Amino acid sequence: MTALLWARMHELLFALDLAGTFVFALSGATTGIMNRLDLFGVLVLSFVASTVGGITRDVLLGAVPPAAIDDWRYFATSLLAGLITFFWHPFTKRLHRFVLVFDSAGLAFFAVSGTQKALAYGLNPVMAALLGMLTGIGGGMARDLLVTEPPNVLKSDLYAVAALAGALVVVVGHVLHLSPNATTMTGAVLCFGIRLLARWRGWQLPFAQPSQRTKAKADDSDNQTDRKS
Amino acid sequence: MTALLWARMHELLFALDLAGTFVFALSGATTGIMNRLDLFGVLVLSFVASTVGGITRDVLLGAVPPAAIDDWRYFATSLLAGLITFFWHPFTKRLHRFVLVFDSAGLAFFAVSGTQKALAYGLNPVMAALLGMLTGIGGGMARDLLVTEPPNVLKSDLYAVAALAGALVVVVGHVLHLSPNATTMTGAVLCFGIRLLARWRGWQLPFAQPSQRTKAKADDSDNQTDRKS
Amino acid sequence: MTALLWARMHELLFALDLAGTFVFALSGATTGIMNRLDLFGVLVLSFVASTVGGITRDVLLGAVPPAAIDDWRYFATSLLAGLITFFWHPFTKRLHRFVLVFDSAGLAFFAVSGTQKALAYGLNPVMAALLGMLTGIGGGMARDLLVTEPPNVLKSDLYAVAALAGALVVVVGHVLHLSPNATTMTGAVLCFGIRLLARWRGWQLPFAQPSQRTKAKADDSDNQTDRKS
Repeated sequence: MTALLWARMHELLFALDLAGTFVFALSGATTGIMNRLDLFGVLVLSFVASTVGGITRDVLLGAVPPAAIDDWRYFATSLLAGLITFFWHPFTKRLHRFVLVFDSAGLAFFAVSGTQKALAYGLNPVMAALLGMLTGIGGGMARDLLVTEPPNVLKSDLYAVAALAGALVVVVGHVLHLSPNATTMTGAVLCFGIRLLARWRGWQLPFAQPSQRTKAKADDSDNQTDRKS
Repeated sequence: MTALLWARMHELLFALDLAGTFVFALSGATTGIMNRLDLFGVLVLSFVASTVGGITRDVLLGAVPPAAIDDWRYFATSLLAGLITFFWHPFTKRLHRFVLVFDSAGLAFFAVSGTQKALAYGLNPVMAALLGMLTGIGGGMARDLLVTEPPNVLKSDLYAVAALAGALVVVVGHVLHLSPNATTMTGAVLCFGIRLLARWRGWQLPFAQPSQRTKAKADDSDNQTDRKS
Repeated sequence: MTALLWARMHELLFALDLAGTFVFALSGATTGIMNRLDLFGVLVLSFVASTVGGITRDVLLGAVPPAAIDDWRYFATSLLAGLITFFWHPFTKRLHRFVLVFDSAGLAFFAVSGTQKALAYGLNPVMAALLGMLTGIGGGMARDLLVTEPPNVLKSDLYAVAALAGALVVVVGHVLHLSPNATTMTGAVLCFGIRLLARWRGWQLPFAQPSQRTKAKADDSDNQTDRKS
């Protein structure tokens, strides 16, 4: 039954995965260029941004080698996106607005396909939704860490919440035995919509009240100073 | 025999693991708030600080999905600790002194339970002790890296040494065929004691002599300047 | 056939692996001392720099526990290199020029042995070459990230290209059914040569044209400012 579900979903997941890979690779390459990496560094960031979420999911599920390592088409897709960004960077910059749309689509693809795969491997629904979310946000986190910036997803708009919402739709559909195709589509559209709306409206999650915060951070910095002096 | 040992230890390990998860999640959430992460970021740091050590251990042992992914109670525990810290932060700040005690207890729990699990999976004693130590310190390292600070454990007091001491007690007990319950308890108490004493007395590990160091660091910085200019 | 190939290569791979482990551990320990880590931190960086590439490869291949965790001799080798560097640091500094040669040799060893292992596990040739390269550069990337510096390999000379060239020789030899010993040797020598020549001649990979880059980076920094203020 589990194997059957996985077989039926496989074709859809693969198409979504390659589409998500391409758009996330664009964001990785752009980050690489902004941080003055060389051609190799730009291509590494393309591959990392587009595959680390799925690779982490697969390693945690025991699905090794991970799809993005076992199948060269993921690498080829990220390589293509990386080279396009590297050589037509002034051109792709003007596509900035489209990249936001693409990136939201990639997030939606990865969140729902990651959740489906986790469910197919028998994970319980709560953790399957979280692994789906991780599939969506993991690549971007690794991309930011490689250029030693704190992952943007930890402190900005509703990026991760959008991924989680999409993943939850898939999980609820699975528990209620609804058609996987329908819930996958619905979850992806919901994630895509929340992400775009949040960005355009500037919706944000709450921050903790700032009492003592500045002082605490300052104390903490003192511990670090010897390293920088 | 190995399977039997693992079955006998399982209940004790699970209780220790959840206790350690809770206190490490408190430390992760506090770090998140100090670094001005939003609610999502704070909860991610709770989960990361409390589970990445064990997840890494399980991935390296081939015990996938890792316990903290397969069993939703780890996530629920870290979520609870994260929400408490987020909404009662000014209150938990006053508990600073208690957090040190809790954190030392979490380190002790994780170090001994991680070592037991590595031994149960047939790892040789030396590496089992190191994996136990990694179980204890891995979450804190990942927590620091996510806010792009060098892991505190690499340059301060005897945190890791305490974990290693506790792990070694478990390993020696295993080699001498002593009762696992007794050595687990002894190892945990030793780790807890060393950690607290080291902190209160300011014990530190040696640093390398500084000759040439400043110059070397300066040269190294030169290589990095093009990125920052 | 696959198992046979792996058995035949095993002895050679193990010797190369330990040699590479030693020289990469030297580089990790040196980085640790330059960043004012304590003895424990220096030893962690020794182990990380010398084993994380191979550990990542093994986890991705499903070869768990990874060789560097399962076999204590990797740890012993990195420990030895770390202690030597820590206690004779002023002496090892004078060996700077030799370290470059050793590091190039380690890169060559790891790249070809990593590729052989990936092929032996049945990975397709393209991804096997990439995993071989990752085996060579992964430890250095993790070393840099632990001291929160962007991995040097992403923006300097032909380090990764040298590893990839060596890996490709092994892969081509595998596809053409040439003797593994001959192609392993050839690949290692090629990697070693490219690395040294690139360093001495200052060869670099291209960077993307800078148009708009400064502005883009500035905009990006604005998003981050709230964290630093």
